Amino acid sequence: MKMGIARKSGLLNEKELEITEKYTVEELLKQLKDGTLSSLEVTIAFSKRAAMAQQLLSCLTETYFPEAQERARFLDSERASGRIVGPLHGLPISIKDAFQVAGSAATIGFVSFLDHAASKENSPLVDILLELGAVVYVKTNIPQTMMANIAGSIRIPALCCGTYGFKPSTARIPDGGQISPVSAGNNFFNPSAGPLANDIQALGILCRSLLSVRPALYDASALDVPWRSLEVPPSAPKLRLGLLAEDSAFPLHPPVKRALAQAVSALEAKGHEVVPIAPARTQVANALALAFAFFMLDDTPPTHVAASGEPVVPSVIQSMEVFHSFKCDFLDDCKGLEGIKKLAALNVKRDAIQDEWRKIWKEQKLDGVIGPAAQHTAVAHDTYGLPPYTLLLNVLDYPACVLPFGKASSALDAEPFVMGPGQVGPSYDPKLVDGAPTAIQVFTNKMRDEECLQVSAIIDECLKAV
Amino acid sequence: MKMGIARKSGLLNEKELEITEKYTVEELLKQLKDGTLSSLEVTIAFSKRAAMAQQLLSCLTETYFPEAQERARFLDSERASGRIVGPLHGLPISIKDAFQVAGSAATIGFVSFLDHAASKENSPLVDILLELGAVVYVKTNIPQTMMANIAGSIRIPALCCGTYGFKPSTARIPDGGQISPVSAGNNFFNPSAGPLANDIQALGILCRSLLSVRPALYDASALDVPWRSLEVPPSAPKLRLGLLAEDSAFPLHPPVKRALAQAVSALEAKGHEVVPIAPARTQVANALALAFAFFMLDDTPPTHVAASGEPVVPSVIQSMEVFHSFKCDFLDDCKGLEGIKKLAALNVKRDAIQDEWRKIWKEQKLDGVIGPAAQHTAVAHDTYGLPPYTLLLNVLDYPACVLPFGKASSALDAEPFVMGPGQVGPSYDPKLVDGAPTAIQVFTNKMRDEECLQVSAIIDECLKAV
Repeated sequence: MKMGIARKSGLLNEKELEITEKYTVEELLKQLKDGTLSSLEVTIAFSKRAAMAQQLLSCLTETYFPEAQERARFLDSERASGRIVGPLHGLPISIKDAFQVAGSAATIGFVSFLDHAASKENSPLVDILLELGAVVYVKTNIPQTMMANIAGSIRIPALCCGTYGFKPSTARIPDGGQISPVSAGNNFFNPSAGPLANDIQALGILCRSLLSVRPALYDASALDVPWRSLEVPPSAPKLRLGLLAEDSAFPLHPPVKRALAQAVSALEAKGHEVVPIAPARTQVANALALAFAFFMLDDTPPTHVAASGEPVVPSVIQSMEVFHSFKCDFLDDCKGLEGIKKLAALNVKRDAIQDEWRKIWKEQKLDGVIGPAAQHTAVAHDTYGLPPYTLLLNVLDYPACVLPFGKASSALDAEPFVMGPGQVGPSYDPKLVDGAPTAIQVFTNKMRDEECLQVSAIIDECLKAV
Repeated sequence: MKMGIARKSGLLNEKELEITEKYTVEELLKQLKDGTLSSLEVTIAFSKRAAMAQQLLSCLTETYFPEAQERARFLDSERASGRIVGPLHGLPISIKDAFQVAGSAATIGFVSFLDHAASKENSPLVDILLELGAVVYVKTNIPQTMMANIAGSIRIPALCCGTYGFKPSTARIPDGGQISPVSAGNNFFNPSAGPLANDIQALGILCRSLLSVRPALYDASALDVPWRSLEVPPSAPKLRLGLLAEDSAFPLHPPVKRALAQAVSALEAKGHEVVPIAPARTQVANALALAFAFFMLDDTPPTHVAASGEPVVPSVIQSMEVFHSFKCDFLDDCKGLEGIKKLAALNVKRDAIQDEWRKIWKEQKLDGVIGPAAQHTAVAHDTYGLPPYTLLLNVLDYPACVLPFGKASSALDAEPFVMGPGQVGPSYDPKLVDGAPTAIQVFTNKMRDEECLQVSAIIDECLKAV
């Protein structure tokens, strides 16, 4: 949409373009609260834009435009009567298809799920968003088998689209009551829900707002841990950051490498300290192997594909092929194990990866770590491969934030790049991705979600000044 | 030791009796800090008392008396030089045998483990205690197969001995690096570590102190969630408490029933509100059945018993017999499942129990819940049966505190009581348990450990005034 299509289309008036482009979420909320903007006009503006995106990209599975407008009118009348429903009063929010909205479908990318009955109840997250005053207006699509779901369903869209995305620690944000592709009770390797937005402060606003109502009272799977208010950092805080550099098995495309190097320079120029973490310690490849071993414990997702006879999409086939060709001896001693003994052995491996990172935090006294979010930028449709750099943080169960920074440039990175022997990943085609957003990833220790967003905001401010 | 044996023995001088009987932990720490008491004299006093307890009860597996005195001398010299090592400076603390102390054994109640090599490293908790200034002076014993471990290894000793015990939510207190009876990676139903003490404030002091060093930096299995300082409640706070009453399958012995009723009366007399929870909702029996199903997923503990040829102790045999005779249809639809599918089905059942309690919290707006900690008081040696009232809180993963309140009395509860058809539990023999401490249990929602201790302290203050 940054290609200017919304403006050129003539379907949005000047004020609607302004509403959808000019404001941070904080600014929108302020104006919704003081009445400078009505929820109705904000909802219509974002609905128009979502409808255009849908026509270009088929990115939506459900639209609730009439219902959203009715809700926006209600919120506007509440405000007119002096009642602000909650901290998200009047704000349109899109939700991922896996969350349930009573009366509509949640097909999570399976043709066979089209036959399922409509959801009878809202997921707890949806109920909470409504209680906070939000307007739910669309549901967004999901990859087949949700293969890349637990691996970066927040961060991968963010890095591909040049927006901000935040994956919290598991169970901070209530994610119960979703339609899942795996068997019920398979909670051995959990996803986590979190926000995408066009500004970094919005991520914290959403988390803080959600946690203000004690989500554990709505969703028993949510941790009953309050969102912490951190001390305001000094005006020029100096961070000590680890640098998770390129893993030799998963080389970075030149634009991603350049963006990361530029980010490090910018941070150091502002007086932040950046400490490289020895590649042998980062566990990127081990984590990838381990996560896939966890995924393969459950054989349900392929049955949902097979149920309708729909074809498996190329990127899923390709990911599995690449994964099977990928050599990693980390799990060699789990071979031959089955069932619960296998699961327990994988848990031991996960403990080992988490313990290595624990030592890094303790020895290095880091405020956070920066690194790549992926080997590449957005790629051609249905060719997104393995997600080693996002998946690491799922294995660690760490909060992780993707920050947009820079763009791919066929002028600056003119040479194509092809993976060598023992290396995994798609090739780099300078012309194909010219202008695509690049991004970095920031993470902290598990349950330090508040610190992750604070450190990310400091880094983001620094990078924006570049 | 309340039988006066320590005093009658003549082995402790008047000051040592005073040190071990008169002070709260807060008072001891204050005097250790200001030098009114030396760590050496406090350590010797508690060591003498532990040595006597050992001769009476065989309650210890390791003693570190010379090492503890050397450490106490070091801490005293540090203090003399103006250095207070940490918030637990100079305080002797005993630890459970499963925790490792480098150079000594951790046999966790198995004869076969006597052949194991001594621990090479301290468990993270031990390292943290030392960093906080504590003196580790003894290790305490554990039941065979640790059958009652995950079921109340803190709370059961507390209720039997008339002390305070606090089981936090899982992973709040670092419990990694313990010797475990189950297979590595079997983390499907986790224990949690926590303190026992003679005063309730001590429980919070220990938790707050431990969390002050960020245990997650020492133990990757610990949640990196700070201990929250709660607002000081008003001087006469009014609580709204749920009452978890007797479950019909697990009747309470008359002294326990009387103590609970008396506690409710005392709380109501002080203006607290006590709201009975419908017995059909409390899930006591379902939780017991479910927990045992989780335990039986791992067949390792019996092999550790068999390895030495030692006999299985009567209470373990009896518990299993009683459990197998206990009728509960909650898991009927899990029958026939094996391996990971069985585990996933049990997770679904656990979710259902947790969700029922979530609804109770949301509907009833409770500050906490009070109920029995066990059906009975301490019982004759090796006859402790099933632990339904403690185990419920493990299934829920809720923080739970045992508060001593009252005593069994053959005068007040003169009639013996025998379980009827469909009821489970040992018989009540008024003469046998005359004078044994009775207790109540207090719990809050998971991860609300701070609130659990605050509510417990308010209740304790009220009950002490009875």
